[in-house]
Amino acid sequence: MTTETPQIPTAEEEMLNWGRLLMDGLPFADLLAAQRRDSDTSWFAFWMAKADDYESMGDEALRDGNTLTAGYWFWVGSMAAQYAQFLWFDERRPRGQLRKAELYHRAAPLLDPPAERVDLPIDDTVIIGYLRRPKGAQGPVPCAVLLGGLESTKEESYMFENLLLERGVATFTFDGPGQGEMFEDVALADDYHRYSSRVVDYLETLSDTIASDQIGVLGRSLGGHYALRAAAMDGRFKACVTWGGFVQMDDWDFEYPMTKLSWQYVTKSPDLATAQRRVRDAIDVRPVLAGLKVPTYVLHGGKDETPITELDLLQEYAVNADITLDLEPEGDHCCHNLGPAPRLRMADWLTHQLHP
Amino acid sequence: MTTETPQIPTAEEEMLNWGRLLMDGLPFADLLAAQRRDSDTSWFAFWMAKADDYESMGDEALRDGNTLTAGYWFWVGSMAAQYAQFLWFDERRPRGQLRKAELYHRAAPLLDPPAERVDLPIDDTVIIGYLRRPKGAQGPVPCAVLLGGLESTKEESYMFENLLLERGVATFTFDGPGQGEMFEDVALADDYHRYSSRVVDYLETLSDTIASDQIGVLGRSLGGHYALRAAAMDGRFKACVTWGGFVQMDDWDFEYPMTKLSWQYVTKSPDLATAQRRVRDAIDVRPVLAGLKVPTYVLHGGKDETPITELDLLQEYAVNADITLDLEPEGDHCCHNLGPAPRLRMADWLTHQLHP
Repeated sequence: MTTETPQIPTAEEEMLNWGRLLMDGLPFADLLAAQRRDSDTSWFAFWMAKADDYESMGDEALRDGNTLTAGYWFWVGSMAAQYAQFLWFDERRPRGQLRKAELYHRAAPLLDPPAERVDLPIDDTVIIGYLRRPKGAQGPVPCAVLLGGLESTKEESYMFENLLLERGVATFTFDGPGQGEMFEDVALADDYHRYSSRVVDYLETLSDTIASDQIGVLGRSLGGHYALRAAAMDGRFKACVTWGGFVQMDDWDFEYPMTKLSWQYVTKSPDLATAQRRVRDAIDVRPVLAGLKVPTYVLHGGKDETPITELDLLQEYAVNADITLDLEPEGDHCCHNLGPAPRLRMADWLTHQLHP
Repeated sequence: MTTETPQIPTAEEEMLNWGRLLMDGLPFADLLAAQRRDSDTSWFAFWMAKADDYESMGDEALRDGNTLTAGYWFWVGSMAAQYAQFLWFDERRPRGQLRKAELYHRAAPLLDPPAERVDLPIDDTVIIGYLRRPKGAQGPVPCAVLLGGLESTKEESYMFENLLLERGVATFTFDGPGQGEMFEDVALADDYHRYSSRVVDYLETLSDTIASDQIGVLGRSLGGHYALRAAAMDGRFKACVTWGGFVQMDDWDFEYPMTKLSWQYVTKSPDLATAQRRVRDAIDVRPVLAGLKVPTYVLHGGKDETPITELDLLQEYAVNADITLDLEPEGDHCCHNLGPAPRLRMADWLTHQLHP
């Protein structure tokens, strides 16, 4: 892998975004081992083997009656498969995605609190989602709908879900257009809000356990863009968090080469030029941002490759929203490099918005 | 700092035992920052400043009503103070220890579940301990008494406590001779079992919440030695885990220079020769090991500087114990470098022993 300029990370450097992988829950010992692996073992092969190891450990824990431990290993296995494939765009991508979804599905009922799988028909396909409710909750509780991004999916928000669940907020995660288990049926599109609204339709049916007037939305990276769209188009969302998100993608020159390939993949484009055009058309929330009328929290890292001018655009177009701007000068994309502090701030802010 | 041979880590290398610091809960971002700090800032100063930062963040969270977040920051602050001082033996040691205890004391009521401080008089001093009970527990539950080691104290077992608490086991941690808040009154001694038995006396008074016939003991490093002594001398312990422990310390040539200084400190010895003699006399469980009659789990790393011959000694002298040996060929001292797997095995094993 060669790079155009020294500033652009190699694929491996980009994958070894330690802040992200650790904050999403991979053990440090594995990251060290990945870095020190022998030259015959590819990044993909290393992590897919880890996923297999963790599934075996989960099976063994299940046999011994250690259900919490089993759930943990299946879930870590799912993360290993995620980070095996997340920046490859050949046949490895679907293999890794399938493995990730499969292992998370095994983990889901064993998590504490468990994740209940929900299938929501929409158009000619099905939204696959997971609902988690705070342990010991009595009566209806608030709920946060969590949105994945360009190559992140419903399985990876587990650590962040736990922060919300500890604070008494239920969580719902799902794959939308271009993501995870929906990708095969639906590529990236300009109507993500229809999918997030479909989720709210469902949450409204759970009146015994979910307070339908206390639903918020939080999205990470491209999911942060979707969160703006979701809340702007559906007044049932009472609060919005855009975590490393952006308003539009008219000019993507700032993107790393690997990220451009990722856009090409999720738009199912034959070439980068087509991808750029499709992304430009689909990813632009400016026309509807005046509809955003709820408190909105924006986390942005000063060292994010996404230009800080996106914040200006947001303030220019979201004229009806009460915006809380959390700009971290030393933060990278999504501020993964800053550890737990930004995540705790978002979790506390959202909890306060939803607990009136 | 110079070292005698290339094999012996420098003080900084020893302190940058990343596996340990991360598994005990310090954020990865802080470890990176510590490594990259400017040359004018000492290790001690860096971490003590972190402790101050975290206390401020905890105070801010408290003001905003974010109690869980406040508890987390006070606790991480306590860990920062711990790892500021843990291998210094001048005036920095008591300063760091005091700060660690103070910040943990602030964190304790805010943890989830909370840690209740308990003061237990013994001789002319007081054992300061913390009891945590599983959330939502109904009726008496099992309890694990957790023992610190040479420079680890009651504050650092928080992450491991959480594993037990999730599994329905209460935890009790305290400082004994030579440790933390007891060090000023009592140096390292040969009767640590009297202190752990004093804790059991107390737990027996909590018949509504603690099942006095389901009490276990687990100790880490030197605490693993104390755990053997505690269970050998007091039949009320129904299970024993020695996590990187050892039987005796007759020959300490294998110890790193910093560790020898640590022994000198905790024995309050004027020189290393005195320290070695005192340690040899105090740290030897062979005379009582036949009294160990409960299931005992031994975790040992093949790359621990503590010789593997300690396992032979254990099996030679603990003739009445059912020993489960968990030898990790690639594990360092206490297998911190192996991530969550060994910890989960110990937590599950102990839970099974105590839940009949």
